[in-house]
This record gives sequence, structure tokens and C-alpha cells, in this order.
Amino acid sequence: DPKLKIFALNSNKPLAEKIAEAVGVKLGKTSVDRFSDGEIRINIEESIRGDQVYIIQSTSAPVNDNLMELLIMIDALRRASAKTINVVIPYYGYARQDRKARSREPITAKLVANMLETAGATRILALDLHAAQIQGFFDIPLDHLMGAPLLADYFITHHLAENAVVVSPDHGGVTRARKLAEFLKAPIAIIDKRRPRANVAEVMNIIGDVKGKRAIMIDDMIDTAGTITLGAQALMDAGATDVYASCTHPVLSGPAIERIEKSPIKQLIVTDSIELPAEKQIDKIVQVSVGQLMGQAIKFIHENKPVSPLFKNRFH
Amino acid sequence: DPKLKIFALNSNKPLAEKIAEAVGVKLGKTSVDRFSDGEIRINIEESIRGDQVYIIQSTSAPVNDNLMELLIMIDALRRASAKTINVVIPYYGYARQDRKARSREPITAKLVANMLETAGATRILALDLHAAQIQGFFDIPLDHLMGAPLLADYFITHHLAENAVVVSPDHGGVTRARKLAEFLKAPIAIIDKRRPRANVAEVMNIIGDVKGKRAIMIDDMIDTAGTITLGAQALMDAGATDVYASCTHPVLSGPAIERIEKSPIKQLIVTDSIELPAEKQIDKIVQVSVGQLMGQAIKFIHENKPVSPLFKNRFH
Ligand SMILES: Nc1ncnc2c1ncn2[C@@H]1O[C@H](COP(=O)(O)O)[C@@H](O)[C@H]1O
Ligand SMILES: Nc1ncnc2c1ncn2[C@@H]1O[C@H](COP(=O)(O)O)[C@@H](O)[C@H]1O
Repeated sequence: DPKLKIFALNSNKPLAEKIAEAVGVKLGKTSVDRFSDGEIRINIEESIRGDQVYIIQSTSAPVNDNLMELLIMIDALRRASAKTINVVIPYYGYARQDRKARSREPITAKLVANMLETAGATRILALDLHAAQIQGFFDIPLDHLMGAPLLADYFITHHLAENAVVVSPDHGGVTRARKLAEFLKAPIAIIDKRRPRANVAEVMNIIGDVKGKRAIMIDDMIDTAGTITLGAQALMDAGATDVYASCTHPVLSGPAIERIEKSPIKQLIVTDSIELPAEKQIDKIVQVSVGQLMGQAIKFIHENKPVSPLFKNRFH
Repeated sequence: DPKLKIFALNSNKPLAEKIAEAVGVKLGKTSVDRFSDGEIRINIEESIRGDQVYIIQSTSAPVNDNLMELLIMIDALRRASAKTINVVIPYYGYARQDRKARSREPITAKLVANMLETAGATRILALDLHAAQIQGFFDIPLDHLMGAPLLADYFITHHLAENAVVVSPDHGGVTRARKLAEFLKAPIAIIDKRRPRANVAEVMNIIGDVKGKRAIMIDDMIDTAGTITLGAQALMDAGATDVYASCTHPVLSGPAIERIEKSPIKQLIVTDSIELPAEKQIDKIVQVSVGQLMGQAIKFIHENKPVSPLFKNRFH
């Protein structure tokens, strides 16, 4: 039987530790650092010949460095005769350019998929891709996990699901809101941002009933937090008793933390798909771990069992 | 006839300007910046449908950012129906991992070649690749320019070639030294570094005659400048009248500038394949431009003329 080995690169070591623990193995010995000129130097310090290797790496900021670490690691593993190279990407960066919205735009989500395959990845394990279509950008097997059951679990165990309404911050996210609402047995509402005329401020129209209810917003990622914090205010103005927000990927760039602090959002529930530096670990933000979920998925893949039952229901 | 267009990315705009001037065109309109989360955003602001496009980008530090800019630009140009995508790489980074020197090492020079082809490059124009074998890492046409004639030109026009000896700083660089020596009509010498026993300092053995001569060292790149500055001292100790150094690619990372300042090197002649930030532009360093050479090469390629005559002789 080929051995299962897990290697962590630099983007999210704490999560990698949790995943390895859930699988029941120690992280493989490797060092990933820089040459004097900034080029990435990788040393794999144990044989992996004939092994089934899993690499844990989020392509979060600094995205280009993290992506290159991943590609170079895949190259090294392939040349060292790994039997399979399974790439575990808790956060898949460059995902928002997933179509040509305007002329002469790149499609970076596809470019990254091509790079991973060219380097030698044989399988992908992803979590809440920005668009489900990104699965089709790969020609190798891809398992797609979902964070919603874990977020649902938090709201239920903390007794926040009663009298709640799940709110999609835009019309693109209704399917995701629908999913969380199912777990919480709650109704849904949608924030419909519209600009009445050009050069006039957007108006936040709330479709659905939020008055007297706890509003729980959900998105796949929160980046600069503009949409979610404006939405929170609109929900309070519409009579919600309080507002919670949640997402799988806490990108939280630029003004995000300040906006969240100042907003009426009571708590923001996120996963640890992206490691939060100390300055982003504010009281309002709660991180639930996907380590157990991803570890279970790796075990199932290694044993050739279907992965989807892991998140068809709430995950514990 | 398809139009020739040249686009510059962010690594070396001054050189790109010089190349465009030599070709006789204006740089194409584009903006290459960052989204809030650090992902690269590229806007190509003019149609390139059916055009023969040249992209100028050195994959110097920050190497991962510069490489990703290049890959994303290629992707965007391909999707925008460029007829050909000619990638001009004055400095090709990640070139020193060009073979498995130890177990489980990546071969980054090949990985980068694969990435460029997968993204959609149709031709490469390179300058003094760290190893000529990297040409074979590509399956698309590659033209390989040489900086030595330009460096030779500097030494000759500044009357530094008389009574000179060209010195290779290690036995791997003899062919390169031989080439410069031909242009200068000078003899060669070699520095043979040896460690007499383990854990004993290296001894610099000079093979060839340098006493009473001007020593001109040449390498393809100078990174931390350890070899070249120790070599310079050894040459002075062996009775050279003065020591000059030259290389195509001024990587100059870490302690390089300090070492050069403190060394007996009188002048270091480099090209502008890598843009030098202000703090590296010290009096001892002279930059000669490859802009004219690369511009000429682009014209020749566009006109289907052979490129090699450009550097068979001294280049003016
Ligand atoms: N890293 C990024 N940060 C902000 N916006 C982005 C980023 N990448 C892509 N976009 C833009 O976001 C839009 C897609 O977002 P969405 O409609 O949520 O899929 C496109 O117009 C992209 O140009
Ligand atoms: N960016 C880098 N900086 C310093 N050394 C490197 C770098 N990339 C590769 N190397 C090492 O340099 C050696 C190759 O150098 P060379 O013998 O000059 O081709 C290999 O042992 C590499 O591990």
C-alpha cells in the first residue's frame, strides 16, 4: 500500500497541522525558504518515492509567492517520483477573474488551473471555490468541499439560529444563502443593490422580511468588506434586531478590519482557510476550523470513499 | 501585414522604453497594478487582435510577482487574439535550478519554461541564459542573445583592453571568458577555488598569467558578489595591476553592494537587463544598455531575418 504523506508550505501552517492531526499523520519534513535574491528554495527532507502525497497550501496573500511555492513543490515531488500529488487548496486565489467580463481580460482562475496541472498535480481538493465552474477548469479529479455546514454548526450551537433570517449580500449569492438557510431552518432575504441613475449613490433594497429578526449574512469571501458592512447597516435600518455575518474565506484586505469594527455587525464567523495575522484577529471575528473536515476528506480520498457525505449534513 | 506591438510590464520599464525606441514604435497602452488583496490586475488598453505582440519583462526580484505578471499578460493577450506572443526576457530568473543537483530538488528553470508555454507564449527572446541548455527546455522557437560584445565594446572604447587578461571566476565560466577574450584579443586565466580539506577555508588558485596585467573578470550574473570580490583580491595578490569585473545580469542581492565597495574591483561593468534601484547605483558600477541590441533583434525577428549576426561581432 502506498504511504500517505502530508506536506505544508508557508501560507497556512496552523491549518496544515490541524489537517495532519485529523488524518493521524505527522507533517512531512521539508523546508521552504528563499535564496538571497528572493527565489524560492525548497528542500524535501524525506523520501516520497511511490507515496501518495498531499500538499496543503492556500493561495492567499502574498498570492504570487504562495502560488509559486506550490508550483515548485509540485515540480519537486513529481521529479522525486511521488505516486500521486494531491493539492489541497483551502483558499483558491485568483478566482474572481473566472470569465472575460471585459475585452482583453485574462482568466486567471483558468491560468492557475493550467499551471497546477502542468506542474504535475494529479488531484485537487478545494473549499468553496468562488464559482463552481472553476471545477471545470481542471482536467484532473477535483473534490469540492463546502464550509456552510461548519458555519451553520456555529450558529446552531451558539443558539443564534432561532428567529433568524439568512441574507445574501447580493443576488449572485442566493444559492449559498439558500444552503445555509436549509441547515438553519430559516427563511432567506436578499440585498439588491441598485444605482437609480448614473453618478447617484447605490440604494440597498432588501427583498424579504427582516424586521424583528436576527439577520445572518453569508458570502464565500469577504475582501474589503464594503458590501457586507453597507448591507449590515441596511438590515439594521430595516428593523433587524441584530446582524451577524459569515463567510468561508476571510480575505480582509485594505480597509476591511476598520469597516467591520465600525459596522453594526455583531460577530463575523469565518473559517481558517486563510491564516489571519495578529492585527486581523479582532474580538468581532470568530474562526471555526476546516481542519477536521479537510482531514476527513483526505482520509476518504485515500480510502477511495466518496467525499460528499462529509458536508451533505452539518459537520461535527 | 500584422502589426508589431510592444508592451512593457513592471520589472524594467526604462529598458522597455529603450527597446521600443530602437524598434521605432511606442510602447502599447496597458496598466498593470494590484487589486486590494494583492492579486495582479492587467488592463490592455488597445486592441491587439491579429497583431504580433512583444512583451518585455525580466523575471528579476521580486521574481514571483514579475513572473506572474508575465504569465497573466500572456494569458490576456492569447484570449484577445494576438497573432503571436513573443516574450522578451532580458533576465531569466529561476535559472540556477536547471538540473537535479541533489535528491528531490525541483528544476525551476524548466518549470518556468513550461509555465510560459502553457500560458501561450509562441516565441522567446533571451539574453545570456545561465546555462545554454535552458534553450532546450522550450519547445517553441527561442533566440539567445549575448551580452559579451557590448561589454567588450565598453572595455575597448575606454582603452581598457590593452595589456589585459580576461579571468573566469570559476571553471564553469571558461567558455564565457574565452568569448570576451576573443573580442578583446587578450589571453585568459581561470580562478580555481579549492578546499584543501573539509572545514578548511577555500584557496584561490590562479591558473594563467596575471602579473603586471589588467585583470578583467566576467560572469553571466553577479548575485551576492562573494566569488567575484574574493577573486579580485586573489588577482591583486597575484600581481595584477588593477581589476575590473563585468557581467550581463546585475542581480546584486544581500551583501553584494557592500562587498563590491570594499573590494579592490575598480569598476564593475554590467548591462541593464535588470533595473538597478537607486541604492545599487554606486560609482563603481557602470551600466551599458542592451536596448539597442534587443530592439534590433525584435526587428530582425519581425522581418524573418537571422538574429545571430547581431552579436557575432562587437555590437554598436
Ligand atoms: N482580486 C480581486 N479583487 C477585487 N476584484 C477582483 C479581483 N479579481 C477580480 N476582480 C473583479 O471582480 C469581478 C468579479 O467578481 P464577482 O462578480 O464577485 O465574480 C470582476 O469584474 C473582476 O475584475
Ligand atoms: N536563486 C539562487 N540563489 C543562489 N543559489 C541558487 C539559486 N538558485 C539555485 N541556486 C543553487 O545554485 C547552484 C547552481 O549554481 P551553478 O552551479 O552556478 O549553476 C545549485 O546548487 C542551486 O541549488
